Amino acid sequence: LLQSDFVLLFCFSNADIFLSLSPLHLQVYMLPQIEKSGVAAEIDAAVQLLLKLKVDYKQMTGQDYKAGCPPSENLIVSNNGPAADDCDGEDLVDPWNVSASSTKGVDYDKLIVRFGSSKIDKELLERIEKVSGQRAHHFLRRGIFFSHRDMHQILDAYEKHKSFYLYTGRGPSSEAMHVGHLIPFIFTKWLQDVFDIPLVVQMTDDEKYLWKDLTLEECHRFTVENAKDIIACGFDVNKTFIFSDLDYMGASPQFYRNVVKVQKHVTFNQVKGIFGFTDSDCIGKISFPAIQAAPSFSSSFPQIFGGKKDVPCLIPCAIDQDPYFRMTRDVAPRIGLLKPALLHSTFFPALQGAQTKMSASDPNSSIFLTDTPKQIKNKINKHAFSGGKDTVEEHRKYGGNTEVDVSFLYLTFFLEDDEKLEKIKEDYTSGALLTGELKKILIETLQPMIAQHQERRKQVTDEMVQQFMTPRPLNYKF
Amino acid sequence: LLQSDFVLLFCFSNADIFLSLSPLHLQVYMLPQIEKSGVAAEIDAAVQLLLKLKVDYKQMTGQDYKAGCPPSENLIVSNNGPAADDCDGEDLVDPWNVSASSTKGVDYDKLIVRFGSSKIDKELLERIEKVSGQRAHHFLRRGIFFSHRDMHQILDAYEKHKSFYLYTGRGPSSEAMHVGHLIPFIFTKWLQDVFDIPLVVQMTDDEKYLWKDLTLEECHRFTVENAKDIIACGFDVNKTFIFSDLDYMGASPQFYRNVVKVQKHVTFNQVKGIFGFTDSDCIGKISFPAIQAAPSFSSSFPQIFGGKKDVPCLIPCAIDQDPYFRMTRDVAPRIGLLKPALLHSTFFPALQGAQTKMSASDPNSSIFLTDTPKQIKNKINKHAFSGGKDTVEEHRKYGGNTEVDVSFLYLTFFLEDDEKLEKIKEDYTSGALLTGELKKILIETLQPMIAQHQERRKQVTDEMVQQFMTPRPLNYKF
Repeated sequence: LLQSDFVLLFCFSNADIFLSLSPLHLQVYMLPQIEKSGVAAEIDAAVQLLLKLKVDYKQMTGQDYKAGCPPSENLIVSNNGPAADDCDGEDLVDPWNVSASSTKGVDYDKLIVRFGSSKIDKELLERIEKVSGQRAHHFLRRGIFFSHRDMHQILDAYEKHKSFYLYTGRGPSSEAMHVGHLIPFIFTKWLQDVFDIPLVVQMTDDEKYLWKDLTLEECHRFTVENAKDIIACGFDVNKTFIFSDLDYMGASPQFYRNVVKVQKHVTFNQVKGIFGFTDSDCIGKISFPAIQAAPSFSSSFPQIFGGKKDVPCLIPCAIDQDPYFRMTRDVAPRIGLLKPALLHSTFFPALQGAQTKMSASDPNSSIFLTDTPKQIKNKINKHAFSGGKDTVEEHRKYGGNTEVDVSFLYLTFFLEDDEKLEKIKEDYTSGALLTGELKKILIETLQPMIAQHQERRKQVTDEMVQQFMTPRPLNYKF
Repeated sequence: LLQSDFVLLFCFSNADIFLSLSPLHLQVYMLPQIEKSGVAAEIDAAVQLLLKLKVDYKQMTGQDYKAGCPPSENLIVSNNGPAADDCDGEDLVDPWNVSASSTKGVDYDKLIVRFGSSKIDKELLERIEKVSGQRAHHFLRRGIFFSHRDMHQILDAYEKHKSFYLYTGRGPSSEAMHVGHLIPFIFTKWLQDVFDIPLVVQMTDDEKYLWKDLTLEECHRFTVENAKDIIACGFDVNKTFIFSDLDYMGASPQFYRNVVKVQKHVTFNQVKGIFGFTDSDCIGKISFPAIQAAPSFSSSFPQIFGGKKDVPCLIPCAIDQDPYFRMTRDVAPRIGLLKPALLHSTFFPALQGAQTKMSASDPNSSIFLTDTPKQIKNKINKHAFSGGKDTVEEHRKYGGNTEVDVSFLYLTFFLEDDEKLEKIKEDYTSGALLTGELKKILIETLQPMIAQHQERRKQVTDEMVQQFMTPRPLNYKF
């Protein structure tokens, strides 16, 4: 298992011995012992590859991989064929029902195990409240931020009056941001207010240039436009530095030095395992992860931290960004720098349901920050996946399913009042509240929220963006 | 052949069909037609792989690969075994004699064919003299700069009063530079004097950090020390910009933008084929070629060229750097930029002979710029490989071989007087001049040259280095 992916690939034709070990067990039980040994990323890469092989196996055969069970000759997917069931102890999940149960629990719990992160439990919640002296944000209370790495260490240090800083980011792939994009920023703003600490926001315009069919000029323009939406979340210019990679890379020798340090300590094998890069990928993609890693180190921002390289970093982000920071945490001790801590959020569901991926190119997949009240109303009424029953009679009798109902899920993000939310849940589950009525509540929650955002965004001038994006000291001494 | 290397590798076991095509022919005949199609680099990579496979085949079997001829069972190298001879029409070269003949002709001619560059012929020499109004430098007259790409286009443009700029570089892997390291700088200085054009010198300290067991600080210090030796060659601060990658990358958004542009248009497959990178290489190495490519574009230096992106670039360098610029020339038209032109030099031989690689860690492999007159004398007398005969009697009778005699080869680099050099050649070949006497001439040539260099280097202050290395306009309008 310490061999490279290449070797594993060559063993594939007689690979039962490798695949019969559960990748999950491998990671869970092996990682703790070896995390400091520097081979964690190698193993991580191998495990990712094994997981991928299982997925490929399933795509090709329509059956879950099980050691010793050759694929049946009938390659058509059979949801409950005896061969598949016999061979695989894991649940076969139905895409229409289980998506909900996985979205609401199972999947994210599995993700925590697979990624090796920790659940944000009641103890941590209470500790955050105790240390900050504030009630936990509803994103925390409701499990929207559900997973973490090393948050206790951040709090330990903070209690000893050792400050930290926040780092989050945005990939500016288009002018339009949707409400889901606001989640990390809303939460980061709360963290900044509660702990009173500096924040750096990375706009990965270089990444978008490398991945998308866009020009450098377009990516940089999207950075500026998206920065306006971020600033409209209410960040304080004296505490916040927003930077474009395309600009800051060419404005900070210290940032580039950290990038090169990371690049020296990560191999192609590792990024192949972690991110799935192939030999046909451009070298820009292959080396990019180092650029997302570098802001995790305070020495990348000498203007803010006065050259100190031991200011701890806390990264609030969606769980899909974790691979970047698993890589970062693996590299950090080897280049004499601190591992960043993390707070992970769940994914924001598309209007069509948690299984559908939101897409900036499909305006109906989410509510955009530029939508008019009428567009918001129409989109929710037309496209928001309902957990209600087919007829009013059935709904009244059996009640709706809040676990898959997108309107309800959106309310868990944006309706701050816990009691009100609980009442809606009760009424919807009992059948007292109809889907149309639930949608109306969401519409009336989002319309003023978006309108207020648009109003604040209008106040954000180009000069303000310029100010936020200028490398400079913030209002903190380090 | 347009398949990826990966596919070719898998075909190796029955690869006769691939290898029976001569890679040289492939490159020579196919590249001109398809150079603009963007697949040139893919093919180049495939050809490089085929060449490598042939080398591997020879290392493993001791025989040159020939389609349809399986390796004989006796795997020990046989210099003139009939099987090998029958199978391969190419000369089998004896390492002790042919090194000289290959150094002096065959090998470099082959390199020109293999790399697809052009020989610097009499016509080009005369044209350089006509356009510059100066006698050609002895490096040109003596074939030390022996190959080029697009030099005629540079001269065409220059004749029409369209200027160009020079770009060369140095990898600062240690404080000590040897005389061989001066070759590109001596020649570049001549080009700058003759054409009166700007020069940019890239110090690839990031590359050295990525490849060697050195810290960033060490690499940057070597940059400053090496820059002093470069400045001591007599460059004009008003016409020359020397930059450290570690500094300039973090000081010029335009430079980083060109780096990312190149990184988007080169795949791992391509750099694997061109540079032999493997999956175990760090992602810094894999993406570095883009950083050596970027200074080929005038838009990387807006402070010098006022943002103009169409100032042609001429790169004088040793032929081993050509792969970087083949890659650059392949990418350039795809990102809307000009291909750089090149002038290639032969390798500078080690004291022990042209087959030995010079090594900064072996002080006896070359004359260092820090050597004392006594060290110079001892090294040449002790270590310079002689083309003379074993006894004085034999030498007088048969004469020496200037083609392998390192002292004579060094004189072709550093003795400017053509007549004197010709006389030495005649006398040595006839046996009139003994090895000891030849060495004495070299010693008396190098001692004052190195002493003068040391004297000039002493005059170079840290402030001067700082001046040369500050991004600023030069004394040219564009």
